Amino acid sequence: MSLPEIPQSLIPFLQDYLPKDVPDRPFVTLTYAQSLDSRIAARKGEQTKISHIETKTMTHYIRSKHDAILVGVGTVLADDPKLNCRFRVPGEAASHPRPIIIDPHGKWTYSESQLRQIAATKQGKAPFILIDNTTTIDLQEQSTLEGQGGEFVKLPFFDNKDSPVKNWDLILQKLNELGIGSVMIEGGAKIINDLLTAPKLVDSLIITIGPTFLGKEGVEVSPISQVSLKESKWWQGAQDVVLCARLNLFYTSI
Amino acid sequence: MSLPEIPQSLIPFLQDYLPKDVPDRPFVTLTYAQSLDSRIAARKGEQTKISHIETKTMTHYIRSKHDAILVGVGTVLADDPKLNCRFRVPGEAASHPRPIIIDPHGKWTYSESQLRQIAATKQGKAPFILIDNTTTIDLQEQSTLEGQGGEFVKLPFFDNKDSPVKNWDLILQKLNELGIGSVMIEGGAKIINDLLTAPKLVDSLIITIGPTFLGKEGVEVSPISQVSLKESKWWQGAQDVVLCARLNLFYTSI
Repeated sequence: MSLPEIPQSLIPFLQDYLPKDVPDRPFVTLTYAQSLDSRIAARKGEQTKISHIETKTMTHYIRSKHDAILVGVGTVLADDPKLNCRFRVPGEAASHPRPIIIDPHGKWTYSESQLRQIAATKQGKAPFILIDNTTTIDLQEQSTLEGQGGEFVKLPFFDNKDSPVKNWDLILQKLNELGIGSVMIEGGAKIINDLLTAPKLVDSLIITIGPTFLGKEGVEVSPISQVSLKESKWWQGAQDVVLCARLNLFYTSI
Repeated sequence: MSLPEIPQSLIPFLQDYLPKDVPDRPFVTLTYAQSLDSRIAARKGEQTKISHIETKTMTHYIRSKHDAILVGVGTVLADDPKLNCRFRVPGEAASHPRPIIIDPHGKWTYSESQLRQIAATKQGKAPFILIDNTTTIDLQEQSTLEGQGGEFVKLPFFDNKDSPVKNWDLILQKLNELGIGSVMIEGGAKIINDLLTAPKLVDSLIITIGPTFLGKEGVEVSPISQVSLKESKWWQGAQDVVLCARLNLFYTSI
């Protein structure tokens, strides 16, 4: 299915929040769609439509500006997403981001995923799967993944079990070594909540709000502490609003 | 302190969502200001600045269009609010709404409140305090309140302890009997959450969203179930966005 055109006013609106070179780590864009009551899904493990098709096009436009797109294992298990880029500049070839999956315990089976189909049919790149040093990798899975240009990447996640920010330092340093200059982080809720209190690691925040309530049972975004924003501005669509902002440094968790 | 002028674009934006005659009960506007993570305060009992001064002016403008303004006892205990209207049409006299306080257990002491000062100095009306039939009213408090034109109003709240919507039926019927044609309901969170799932009782929803996170410890708005909206539209201010909408009837709790 092809996407509708991006609303033209979104392009200048987003411009200052898209990747540029930053020293020592990739440029990090944190982005998600939420309900009014700050839920990103109606229930754990349930993919929920919140945003309008035009903000979906926006997501693919933003993907086209990043080298990689990162999600947690909960998101791949719940949504079996494609994580590719369906935004096209007319006359240009597709520019797919590299999917990065954070899966320390090795819970996900790549070979059974839609991502594998996407990579096999060249509709997107094979992922880099970030896994703990001590987790055993299935050799058949590894062979499938590597055959498509993906990789298992080992990191000492479990050394920092209680320090999400230290792990994010590790992850971003590793992505830097892998030549990734910019990464768009899309979820799930735990990843978003951790990064909202890591202002030194996040360069841009792009939030879509859809006018609906998903209710108490939904999967909530709310950081552990108060977080203030700066350089915030809104865009108003046919149904949703989009906020671009940056995190204020007043909360320093590292 | 006088309020700045209302942004002119807010007036047509709000127009369709302001009170008109409805049969059998007052017109009900549910309105509040929230953070991105759907918190209306940083902590229980703590008044928190979320919205820009221009959306504060909007609140007073909306108050000027209502006969009454209703809050729960938690809000008066936490904020000791004035609940008056500081919006003025040049050349016209002040039009203060009647404060309605829902205080079934009689926890609040009117005579020690800012509201009493406001009524004494004619900067606002004395409240109607809605209290359970079985709660004892202090005679001195009653005398003070009635001397300023306020009232204790008895209702059988405790007969419907587990049915908030039945109590809202009672409350709105009573306000109707008291000649109140429109009521603006401002909080707190429990009242908002209950009414978000009562589409037959709410005519307009006006939500201000400020670009900040109040965090997990904050006082959350999120209804018990999913709630969809209709006729939603956004206004964009210097800092905040405002959503006007109506509740969809798909969730019928009564």
